Amino acid sequence: MNPQGKRSGHRRAGGRTAGKKSLDSPNLRQRLVIENVRPDVDGGRFLSKGVVGETISVEADIYSHGHDELAADLLYRHESESEWHRAPMQLVVMDEDRWRCEFNPDERGIYLFTIEAWIDPYARWRRDFAVKAAVGEASDLDLQVGAHLLNQVAERASGPGRRALADAAERLPLDSADATNIALDQGLAREARDWKDPLLVARYERELSVLVEGKKAAFSAWYEMFPRSASPDPGRPGTFRDVEARLDYVAGMGFDVLYLPPIHPIGVAYRKGPNSSLNASAGDPGCPWAIGSKVGGHKSINPDLGTMADFRRLVNAAKRRGLNIALDIAFQCSPDHPYVTEHPEWFRKRPDGSIQYAENPPKKYQDVHPFDFETEARESLWEELKSIFLFWIEEGVSFFRVDNPHTKPFAFWEWCIAEIRKVDPDVVLLAEAFTRKPVMYRLSKVGFTQSYTNFAWTRDKPTLTEYFTELSTSPVMDFFRPNAWPTTPDILTEQMRRGERATFVSRLVLAATLSASYGIYGPGYELIEHAALDPDSEEFLNSEKFEIRHWNLDDPRSLRGEIAAINRARHENVALQSSRGLRFLDIDNDQIIAYSKTSPDKGNVIVCVVNLDPKRVQEGTVRLPITDWGLSKGAKFRVYDLLNDAAYQWQGQSNFVRLDPKVTTAHIFKVDLAEVVRRSASG
Amino acid sequence: MNPQGKRSGHRRAGGRTAGKKSLDSPNLRQRLVIENVRPDVDGGRFLSKGVVGETISVEADIYSHGHDELAADLLYRHESESEWHRAPMQLVVMDEDRWRCEFNPDERGIYLFTIEAWIDPYARWRRDFAVKAAVGEASDLDLQVGAHLLNQVAERASGPGRRALADAAERLPLDSADATNIALDQGLAREARDWKDPLLVARYERELSVLVEGKKAAFSAWYEMFPRSASPDPGRPGTFRDVEARLDYVAGMGFDVLYLPPIHPIGVAYRKGPNSSLNASAGDPGCPWAIGSKVGGHKSINPDLGTMADFRRLVNAAKRRGLNIALDIAFQCSPDHPYVTEHPEWFRKRPDGSIQYAENPPKKYQDVHPFDFETEARESLWEELKSIFLFWIEEGVSFFRVDNPHTKPFAFWEWCIAEIRKVDPDVVLLAEAFTRKPVMYRLSKVGFTQSYTNFAWTRDKPTLTEYFTELSTSPVMDFFRPNAWPTTPDILTEQMRRGERATFVSRLVLAATLSASYGIYGPGYELIEHAALDPDSEEFLNSEKFEIRHWNLDDPRSLRGEIAAINRARHENVALQSSRGLRFLDIDNDQIIAYSKTSPDKGNVIVCVVNLDPKRVQEGTVRLPITDWGLSKGAKFRVYDLLNDAAYQWQGQSNFVRLDPKVTTAHIFKVDLAEVVRRSASG
Repeated sequence: MNPQGKRSGHRRAGGRTAGKKSLDSPNLRQRLVIENVRPDVDGGRFLSKGVVGETISVEADIYSHGHDELAADLLYRHESESEWHRAPMQLVVMDEDRWRCEFNPDERGIYLFTIEAWIDPYARWRRDFAVKAAVGEASDLDLQVGAHLLNQVAERASGPGRRALADAAERLPLDSADATNIALDQGLAREARDWKDPLLVARYERELSVLVEGKKAAFSAWYEMFPRSASPDPGRPGTFRDVEARLDYVAGMGFDVLYLPPIHPIGVAYRKGPNSSLNASAGDPGCPWAIGSKVGGHKSINPDLGTMADFRRLVNAAKRRGLNIALDIAFQCSPDHPYVTEHPEWFRKRPDGSIQYAENPPKKYQDVHPFDFETEARESLWEELKSIFLFWIEEGVSFFRVDNPHTKPFAFWEWCIAEIRKVDPDVVLLAEAFTRKPVMYRLSKVGFTQSYTNFAWTRDKPTLTEYFTELSTSPVMDFFRPNAWPTTPDILTEQMRRGERATFVSRLVLAATLSASYGIYGPGYELIEHAALDPDSEEFLNSEKFEIRHWNLDDPRSLRGEIAAINRARHENVALQSSRGLRFLDIDNDQIIAYSKTSPDKGNVIVCVVNLDPKRVQEGTVRLPITDWGLSKGAKFRVYDLLNDAAYQWQGQSNFVRLDPKVTTAHIFKVDLAEVVRRSASG
Repeated sequence: MNPQGKRSGHRRAGGRTAGKKSLDSPNLRQRLVIENVRPDVDGGRFLSKGVVGETISVEADIYSHGHDELAADLLYRHESESEWHRAPMQLVVMDEDRWRCEFNPDERGIYLFTIEAWIDPYARWRRDFAVKAAVGEASDLDLQVGAHLLNQVAERASGPGRRALADAAERLPLDSADATNIALDQGLAREARDWKDPLLVARYERELSVLVEGKKAAFSAWYEMFPRSASPDPGRPGTFRDVEARLDYVAGMGFDVLYLPPIHPIGVAYRKGPNSSLNASAGDPGCPWAIGSKVGGHKSINPDLGTMADFRRLVNAAKRRGLNIALDIAFQCSPDHPYVTEHPEWFRKRPDGSIQYAENPPKKYQDVHPFDFETEARESLWEELKSIFLFWIEEGVSFFRVDNPHTKPFAFWEWCIAEIRKVDPDVVLLAEAFTRKPVMYRLSKVGFTQSYTNFAWTRDKPTLTEYFTELSTSPVMDFFRPNAWPTTPDILTEQMRRGERATFVSRLVLAATLSASYGIYGPGYELIEHAALDPDSEEFLNSEKFEIRHWNLDDPRSLRGEIAAINRARHENVALQSSRGLRFLDIDNDQIIAYSKTSPDKGNVIVCVVNLDPKRVQEGTVRLPITDWGLSKGAKFRVYDLLNDAAYQWQGQSNFVRLDPKVTTAHIFKVDLAEVVRRSASG
């Protein structure tokens, strides 16, 4: 039965210790439970990720048996600090067990946090007293109990609080009218809260860690281009100087990162010709991922592109335009790479003594030798590979796109990335792993800053909703930062092969707004390049991987205007600068996807509405959580389409949208959170 | 780019060690990842739960970088064994990372398990060789590689396997036709699998534990009755002898457990009268939960019910009928309890020296003194409370319903239950905690065998579906065993207060089939007792908690026939003996809920269809996963309604059901898994 029913039960406030050891193990003395703490990546095994200036929300289930009043503090500190900061946690929902507190990391580096919770007997007394007093059932004994508890608190207190507590304790039993004032005094209750009984305090068993990085770690728009295709003159290959001349074009579209495929000397042995043909002609430039020739390897520059001085010039010219150059780190060698002759111990040998090339049976990649990461000469190999990163960091590069990291040991990355970060805490490593989720997630856990995603193959509304919900909620959002690409030099999906302009726009909008980092492979993307090697292939026809292309940037069909508008929207709206804060919205049309992005401080709200059908007009009524935005239920408010500067007045939760793929395939609405007070005549 | 694309990549098979320590930490040498292992309650902090003879399914994500072929064994052993049993794990879905293996615990006690995974280079060679051979690309070098790998295996092998492996290695490079046979030889591959390279083996970091208990721990039907209301003569109160006379009635309905509210002497001080009135008359029997009088306490018997000898007789008479007597353990005292005077140190005192009674402000329960579990005399108190369990275990009682465990420390239960189990491993403890989920779950984690649930307040289809899905899937199903009650002496929900017969039947069927353990509070339940103290109260009018009632068991409205049919169905169908194996089924009517229960060996399938509307006929088409049951897509098959012995022939996935609450509120169909081969003329 329930005489001590749902909110009663009786615990003495003090948690004194029993004498003998059989009943005295730490587990048995644990009265408060603190569990399901987040963010926490695999029980503290890995760091979770944060960004300077972006709120970190810590949550936990905290409870005790019975009906005590609990209190909890979040304790957090930067690794350079020795003292904890404290902030009070709050119940997420009254009478449940989930507590939350946010903190705002304002420095790069590792933040540690943990939780302290305790039982607050005076708070329980206040709660019960208030109920009794309301029905005239508060007795003198109740007042004496309260005074006793306050006295205990005062004995633990110091400073001005001690006096106030002791005074209140003295007055409490004397006069029941005064007692009510004392019991209701919130300031006194706050004071009492913090002078806790050490026997009633529990500390969470772990200190958890968040790696807080610069803004660009989570928010970046990438533009990929092949330098050798950058020449304005179809008669000659492009160079770093040509790339430099194109910086204004790229920066003008609002990108943050200019990513160049490998810029190193290209092997000659087994060089591939156009469309991956096995018989290259003398003039074929080869594949940039077949790294290394007698001219040099991963720390050298392909002489066709220019000199190291040219490269430095490019890096600096890009920086002046707010662009970061990203290099491609592909840990593999052409048969001509100096490593192959100088360090044969770093490669796997076949029984005939030859070095094993890459293969994916029955396919052979004789132009590529993988490293043997578990060779007996592992230490010198790993150190050398690390030194490749450090070499380019020294040259001013902090952004790296890492080729196929999932074919190298996790342990290598965990070690290597930690080492690199010691030298350059701002380094950004984008993992190019298109594989099974546990593997992609593991790479992020061991240290990759960002990761390519399955976005290219995530196409319809349920699939997009499910995938980006997973990416934008715990636990995945705590360690995995998505970077969404509609196409890459290796990925031209069936959807893109159709070459519909509306599809190229809608995929761009989805990538750039669902994910805080995204990228396009240009100039093909803005020029709607979509010819495939064959109808069922995700390979481009005449791929730049194997030949030099020339592009007409002034093609009137170019999407550069749309791209610039999207990147401007991203830069001007904090809500689009995090992959968190995403919420999918109901709309009564399967061909339209709608979602909101909200900034951590709730001050910036973006609503995206995208027509997934590139051929037909689609319309529907979208339901908006406007009261969560602070608007009243029937409020009139304005939304501005950041893609075309159109403004609309909306009202209430349900609003109509219509998207004609010939005109407007997507809206990126900024919501004006001020209600429109002046009512129209018809309103 | 992807020359080492989705299924290529190159790793040397051996995992040799680097020389120097900087690259040699255990983390950095870990090549295989084993994670997300289940069952696992809070990272190994608590035992998960199993039942003798019921399969335990162990799953884990297991993967490496690259494209190695992996193998994994489940290792498990009973705590009394020193050697592991091994069973090979299998991929749940091809080309994904989830592995599974089941084992069948055939003894009570703790089973330990862990996982060993390793890289199998010969298996990878076979895979690649098969692809190459199929396109005529297998080379002599490939054969030499295979021979080398087989030789390495043979060197590690012993016994007859060694010879076979060495022979195969010798023959492999000699003749490519023979080589193909060797490469395809599955027996050889199985042999090679098990002689693993110690450098390529990873062991999961933890050994996890499952407490395996007897069948009744998970599967039991409980019948609660007040002994003092068991008299067939309205002129006198019931006794243990009357309960004995009623055993055939209870056993006849098919119950496994007969649960008696506290049978101890009842306090006189502040004794409550009918309907919880504060002014009891001389003849009022008092509330059984106000335990203890000068006659005795928790180890004594209320003289009005009989003697200890009578009780022993009852226990034995019940056992002869397959019934277990369950006692109520309520750790609280009336003011007259001998503990109060003999051990005042076990109670909390108020400032005036009086002992604090229970309260839930503004309500006071002056007839009940809670123990102070954290008193300085904690050790003697805890030992005494433990001894209460042991006393009744000594008297032949193994089933206990524990009153309000959530108002006592988790640490007390964890210690006490572990101690009790040492004495009686078959003890079943049912936690009566109606409170927030984390607290209820914690009680199960610290050792309670079963738990009351929120079933009574879980009423409509979405809520039932969500709640029982949570209870029947990991992680909750791994530690929490539900026991569902439509009513209790404290809980008469608004739904039940209406007194509709169809509701009493449908709630019974839901409780008895959604949950492997359930209970009813009789004889009120079968007699559709539903009068409430007031219209908004969950308290019964004239509750047996405060007065003696007399019941007419022969009332023609009695549900005893329905109850007997339901309990018979439960005893005859393994699928209903576990709370796992539950799957909700689509049906196009919100007022009908449909679900299947499947036995672990898939040999027994039950389909329940329940009309949630007690007033109107409801009908609909239920979709059945018949191919998962081994039936063909358009199969004809028979279903038998275990409630009324009706048989139906169904066909295919979609079948029509119609439920008239005046006639049949629910079906419990047993599916005949043999297809009906003889086709009807119209078929």
